[in-house]
Amino acid sequence: MERLQDKIVLGELHTVTGFQASGVSAKLRRHGRPDFSIVYSEQDCTAAGVFTTNQVKAAPVLLDIEHLQADPSCVRAVVTNAAIANACTGEQGMQNARQTAEMAAEKLGLEPTQVLVLSTGVIGVQLPMEKIADGIEIASDALASGQWEEAAKAIMTTDTRPKAYSIQSTAGYSITGIAKGSGMIAPNMATMLSIISTDAKISAELLQDALRQANALSFNSISVDGDTSTNDTVLLLANGASGVEINRDNQAAFVDELTEVCQALARMIVLDGEGATKYISIQVVGACSVADAHQIANTIATSSLVKTAFYGADANWGRILAAAGRAGVPIDPDKLNLWFRAVQVADDLLQVVAAGTPTDYAEADASHIFAQDEIDVVLDLGLGDAAATVWTCDLSHEYVSINADYRT
Amino acid sequence: MERLQDKIVLGELHTVTGFQASGVSAKLRRHGRPDFSIVYSEQDCTAAGVFTTNQVKAAPVLLDIEHLQADPSCVRAVVTNAAIANACTGEQGMQNARQTAEMAAEKLGLEPTQVLVLSTGVIGVQLPMEKIADGIEIASDALASGQWEEAAKAIMTTDTRPKAYSIQSTAGYSITGIAKGSGMIAPNMATMLSIISTDAKISAELLQDALRQANALSFNSISVDGDTSTNDTVLLLANGASGVEINRDNQAAFVDELTEVCQALARMIVLDGEGATKYISIQVVGACSVADAHQIANTIATSSLVKTAFYGADANWGRILAAAGRAGVPIDPDKLNLWFRAVQVADDLLQVVAAGTPTDYAEADASHIFAQDEIDVVLDLGLGDAAATVWTCDLSHEYVSINADYRT
Repeated sequence: MERLQDKIVLGELHTVTGFQASGVSAKLRRHGRPDFSIVYSEQDCTAAGVFTTNQVKAAPVLLDIEHLQADPSCVRAVVTNAAIANACTGEQGMQNARQTAEMAAEKLGLEPTQVLVLSTGVIGVQLPMEKIADGIEIASDALASGQWEEAAKAIMTTDTRPKAYSIQSTAGYSITGIAKGSGMIAPNMATMLSIISTDAKISAELLQDALRQANALSFNSISVDGDTSTNDTVLLLANGASGVEINRDNQAAFVDELTEVCQALARMIVLDGEGATKYISIQVVGACSVADAHQIANTIATSSLVKTAFYGADANWGRILAAAGRAGVPIDPDKLNLWFRAVQVADDLLQVVAAGTPTDYAEADASHIFAQDEIDVVLDLGLGDAAATVWTCDLSHEYVSINADYRT
Repeated sequence: MERLQDKIVLGELHTVTGFQASGVSAKLRRHGRPDFSIVYSEQDCTAAGVFTTNQVKAAPVLLDIEHLQADPSCVRAVVTNAAIANACTGEQGMQNARQTAEMAAEKLGLEPTQVLVLSTGVIGVQLPMEKIADGIEIASDALASGQWEEAAKAIMTTDTRPKAYSIQSTAGYSITGIAKGSGMIAPNMATMLSIISTDAKISAELLQDALRQANALSFNSISVDGDTSTNDTVLLLANGASGVEINRDNQAAFVDELTEVCQALARMIVLDGEGATKYISIQVVGACSVADAHQIANTIATSSLVKTAFYGADANWGRILAAAGRAGVPIDPDKLNLWFRAVQVADDLLQVVAAGTPTDYAEADASHIFAQDEIDVVLDLGLGDAAATVWTCDLSHEYVSINADYRT
């Protein structure tokens, strides 16, 4: 049987002018799995970042915020280690993050502030700095153009597949992103990281604005959202090597393309959700505001009851309405309409609730939809014109197995 | 091996003067399991209620709120059916709830407003009113003093054990409560119901105040909390038959005793949590307010990552700190202290985090604690003097099985 994860297929990963990447083993993960990556630009980049809003921030997150605040216009490298998150590691952890940047800067001939660092893995363990030093040596020497898949493999933790996506804009620049993340069941899961490179030329201010917009419609609209892990980070580097300049006039097209990259990566993260067997889209329409719609969609998407029902292929719409009712957003239960769809079955929506009560839909039709591995849920609040979509996966036995055994 | 559920042991269930109860089968549940209960008082009761804050409220909840608002001083009976929640059932559902009260009133010689109704089970299905009529006949005829356990059995759904607790006050009155509920993993689970009877004499106003206080420290401090299911309800009836009057001067003692009853019932609900293998107490101290402490404790207690770690007997304190950091309450990560304890091992607390970073505790000590089935977590925020405790259970494979298959 095809697994949901098998839908993660890497298309062509375009080179991005002036960028190099590598993925190697620094012996941080068992069995010599790749665990150390560098993404490097031959010239200075403007850089943008979106970071976890968790108050418990890992040392690399704090360091990157510091470096980006100091100067977001001359970034040259992103150094990532897997296996250890360098979170809850105190002053020593901060020193180790700083030393990682310093060692990489020395090896690559940069200033430490031109280096950003990322870590993902177990919390509360100090980085083994000798292995980190080895990783920097090996990964620097392995840098080459187009090594995106190698880099994507080296940032994985519980991921079963590397994640990367690339587009070549007709305007003449490329955008290529890699990502990792597979803890998905509630908004406090395994770290989500993404590093996106483009050779477009764009100011740091516009770049940050573009990333914020794209992130809202992608990484922040899956069950791993911003205020979650201690390490969640999305970094976007633009080195301008294509010579194509993005300004306020053509920014919209750039944002659209960046959003496509981010949504593709976000979808891969959900497809690789820990133990996931189903990919679920929760669309809330008829809301008074996008924030309201997002809040309700997210509450439904993170409900253990809803997610186990999907796992059990049970069209349990009552749990969806109950989740909507406790989302903290005013609703009118008597105005709720609810539809299910699986495009594998038909493009048509099956209405199961009208005006807050069940329709006389055929249970067999609902069962047929719920037997598929991609399901759309559309909930109409009947209150306004705003809408939002959140993507999530189901909650399975395997999810429990993975997370009960993670450290052991 | 002893299961966690085996810790649910019913002690002596005292008769409460003037109260009768019954639990029978109205053939709503399969295999003729008990599914219909009446708690009846021979004289008028003052009554208090705490109801779900979910905006999607089941018809019986709406009807009870209406009856209690009309007159909280002459309640005589609580009629409960299992198997069907009568939620998301629209106008027909409201009519059915009303008709249930009318039929019971006619059978028992009361006014319909003297009857409260409760339902628990599947959402979106109309009550089969012929079976409800049968249930009222049979359950009314079966009413007798002291039939608490029978009543407790007849309100069960996925519960594996009946839940009841009773105290006899030295002041001369009794309080006996029954409860049901076993969906526990997140605050939106299977319905929690409780019906508590006392022969103390107390005004409706003081009674409501007492219930609100006791509820905050019990049913609202377990993972099934107020703003959750469509049907969550706690009802408290006082018929005054003991002649002992509760007023502002001796209310505190009554509240303490009522809290004991509610906490005992709440503990039984957690012990019977769907698939639960561990009973976990999350105490947050050093907070700026009780509300802050409760919010953080509840965020930890409902985290799937934390709960799967407990299931895996993994002292994964990093997940606990990460949950605290995203609870929406200002904290200082560098001030966090964390301890674990299992009273089955020792009364001493094992400190695993000091000032936000791990201590050099022995992993074997933590493993020994996590191998037990009752574990205390104490998190000190280091900010103030307020504290709160939330009780929860772990997230197991069996939880997923139960909730993936509930309707089938």
